Amino acid sequence: MEIIRKAFTEEKRVFTKTSAADLVTETDHFVENLIVSALKEKFPSHRFIAEEATAAGSKCVLSTSPTWIIDPVDGTCNFVHRFPTVAVSIGFAVNQELEFGVIYHCTEERLYTGRRGQGAYCNDKRLQVSKVTDISKALILTEIGPKRDPETLKLFLSNMERLLKAQAHGIRVIGSATLALCHLASGAADAYYQFGLHCWDLAAATVIIREAGGVVIDTSGGPLDLMSCRVIAAGTQEMAAFIAQQIQTIHYGRDDES
Amino acid sequence: MEIIRKAFTEEKRVFTKTSAADLVTETDHFVENLIVSALKEKFPSHRFIAEEATAAGSKCVLSTSPTWIIDPVDGTCNFVHRFPTVAVSIGFAVNQELEFGVIYHCTEERLYTGRRGQGAYCNDKRLQVSKVTDISKALILTEIGPKRDPETLKLFLSNMERLLKAQAHGIRVIGSATLALCHLASGAADAYYQFGLHCWDLAAATVIIREAGGVVIDTSGGPLDLMSCRVIAAGTQEMAAFIAQQIQTIHYGRDDES
Repeated sequence: MEIIRKAFTEEKRVFTKTSAADLVTETDHFVENLIVSALKEKFPSHRFIAEEATAAGSKCVLSTSPTWIIDPVDGTCNFVHRFPTVAVSIGFAVNQELEFGVIYHCTEERLYTGRRGQGAYCNDKRLQVSKVTDISKALILTEIGPKRDPETLKLFLSNMERLLKAQAHGIRVIGSATLALCHLASGAADAYYQFGLHCWDLAAATVIIREAGGVVIDTSGGPLDLMSCRVIAAGTQEMAAFIAQQIQTIHYGRDDES
Repeated sequence: MEIIRKAFTEEKRVFTKTSAADLVTETDHFVENLIVSALKEKFPSHRFIAEEATAAGSKCVLSTSPTWIIDPVDGTCNFVHRFPTVAVSIGFAVNQELEFGVIYHCTEERLYTGRRGQGAYCNDKRLQVSKVTDISKALILTEIGPKRDPETLKLFLSNMERLLKAQAHGIRVIGSATLALCHLASGAADAYYQFGLHCWDLAAATVIIREAGGVVIDTSGGPLDLMSCRVIAAGTQEMAAFIAQQIQTIHYGRDDES
């Protein structure tokens, strides 16, 4: 990922997608093409769901076929600002089940990996989620999401307010859903929730968190729907259920509806 | 700072100070004593303002004497949760003027330094703030602060709302004022504001930011008062003035009032 590290320090041409806060650069496209073409050559029958191809109009449907789910640069706004919290995320699913995930923290050179039934690791260190069940001992992570209309902002801030009033130790917003989820997997935070993220932010991290002993569910408290653009992840069931009770839904479209 | 890195991964005994969100560990005390006693031996006539001594009742007054201003573990809540954003901050003032600052990012081994008139560096790389003047191109940093009463939370969230409605690219909350200010110094963010931080969070970072070409002012838009527990820092005067216009004051006591 020398490409991202090199581009990180250079001037960038920045374009917007769904909103003024939804950014993309030439590096996102370049890295995505690089990853997809390398994988296609090795696995010509596999399918691909990738962030920039989807933005350009490719269908985003998780079939039963072996499918790679790719975010070439997660934390693009950070990347644009040279804020050093940027990752590449690659997940792999077969029969709509997530099999493994790989996430690379580009500036700190940490490689997070998880494979179903075989544990999760950061470089060579086995990952283990936190066992905190009590909100008053919890560090919570979230992200603002791309929509910035007044109603969305009100709900986003009101959710933060509810958790701070419930005496969470703190809330962190680091600008990369994927890396926030890696912090959760490593036990450095006790819960993560977000509305408005995408399947490519979630796919790899979901395997890693589950293999580190954590739970990844829908914001309703039900099972995760990878295409629903919303998630709660936590070290414990109790913590995930508590967050689900506290937060109000922010409506985003689904990834599999164009 | 091997002590902090080692303690980072271990179980910690955690105590609270001014609020349930204002934490301290044995490591904070241990590292502070280590730094202060080493400096006192070399500079017996110098004065010291240090976080944990102040919490224990020492007066926090910046006289004209040479004074070391020390935060042994900035980001204590992160430290408690093993969230890898933790720093040691040491500033030095003479005649109430900040002369130099040193900040060490404990887990990423980055050393930020700044000396009045001689530039600011991260390891060997010269630091330069961002030149962004337009909020709609800005990444903003802030911290929640220790007070969590309903009125404080309302103002904290309302300030975020104002900046997001003004179309800031994003807001980040990383849990260490000192390291957030280092990101500002390195150009990775365009503005920082906070109410409820302390002189030991600010002293070293203020020199580093100014030597990187940035501005550090009071939240009113006037000159910085190191003891006032509030700050705006930005790459440009225009950005700092814009933030000062937008945000509402959250009242905290002064560091030099017991």
